[in-house]
Amino acid sequence: MRIYDITLTISPELPVWPGDQLPELVRTSKIEEGDEANVSRMCISVHTGTHVDSPYHFHSEGLTVEDLNINHLIGRAYVLHLPDVDLITAEILDNAEIPTRSKRVLFKTKNSTFWSLGEKNFQTDYVAISDDGAEYLVNRGIKLVGVDYLSVAPYEQTVRTHEIFLKAGVIILEGVDLSEVSQGRYTLYCLPLKLAGLDGSPARVILVGV
Amino acid sequence: MRIYDITLTISPELPVWPGDQLPELVRTSKIEEGDEANVSRMCISVHTGTHVDSPYHFHSEGLTVEDLNINHLIGRAYVLHLPDVDLITAEILDNAEIPTRSKRVLFKTKNSTFWSLGEKNFQTDYVAISDDGAEYLVNRGIKLVGVDYLSVAPYEQTVRTHEIFLKAGVIILEGVDLSEVSQGRYTLYCLPLKLAGLDGSPARVILVGV
Repeated sequence: MRIYDITLTISPELPVWPGDQLPELVRTSKIEEGDEANVSRMCISVHTGTHVDSPYHFHSEGLTVEDLNINHLIGRAYVLHLPDVDLITAEILDNAEIPTRSKRVLFKTKNSTFWSLGEKNFQTDYVAISDDGAEYLVNRGIKLVGVDYLSVAPYEQTVRTHEIFLKAGVIILEGVDLSEVSQGRYTLYCLPLKLAGLDGSPARVILVGV
Repeated sequence: MRIYDITLTISPELPVWPGDQLPELVRTSKIEEGDEANVSRMCISVHTGTHVDSPYHFHSEGLTVEDLNINHLIGRAYVLHLPDVDLITAEILDNAEIPTRSKRVLFKTKNSTFWSLGEKNFQTDYVAISDDGAEYLVNRGIKLVGVDYLSVAPYEQTVRTHEIFLKAGVIILEGVDLSEVSQGRYTLYCLPLKLAGLDGSPARVILVGV
């Protein structure tokens, strides 16, 4: 089986949402200073890099990340390649021929080029999903939606798209690098940490060729 | 397929290695205070809860966690149940009939009871692997070894067992909860975060029934 690792490496150079603190990765014990072992500590926003949003991110009564259904995080997924799209709308999705039974959809857009080129500055003109696009996916019974930049929603209008997905219990996966992945069917393993009571978590995410 | 989630939930109540800081999970934006969304930040040792050690943990020239071979982290694994053992030695392993082709072995011991009972205090008398046990596993060509408490090595003698495994490039997986898993063959998905340059990472880890 061929494994595609679509996870970003977390480092202080990784772009983060404007206003979020940069990732802090600090070695607190160092072999070269006489310690027995190298031991490190991480301080990051849970929305850093490749990560999931759980319903609690936008809804006080929503599920927190440790309780997300593992059967929604793992399973058949479809990668849809939209190379020339600036905003993923209902109309675009309706013309896209997503397989009817796909309950997990990941969008490969020009965003993935930011990762393959190693772009270090946060981009505000990333491709995202419109509110009618989100409604379209909810109505299709999607359980998990994945995007290749740091938000599922446009930069100037972050609330509605998130709300539509999260109110419907759809798991949002943000910040995957799909630059090496072609359109098609895969098995997705999207594995966030189990962080008690939180609104999201960084995740390691792979696609396995089927 | 049946999925067994063998990952610990990270919370401030989770036992940590003596001297390590407790996990800090802090909500920095709160809907109930008028913010648009709940947003949290985590500050934890990378050796918190269910986590992997990479060779760099004990060797300055060793691989760091983002570079671990994904093909070693994923694949066929064997769970060996040793209910009455206090120390996993070469002799015990030699009598245990681990399938010859198993390159990933997880040990279910009485440690798993600490997790199923929700024990909040760090235990120093956990079951671990002796140095001759580690050598035995290295000589068998094991790629990944998993234990159900927070260290692969005995509390009073942490260095040798770690060194033997990590010098040989064996990935160490610590802090899995095997209380709901029976002895036998599975497919392991051990997915740590990709933390640039670090000695380990928390991981989400599942076993899939074969």
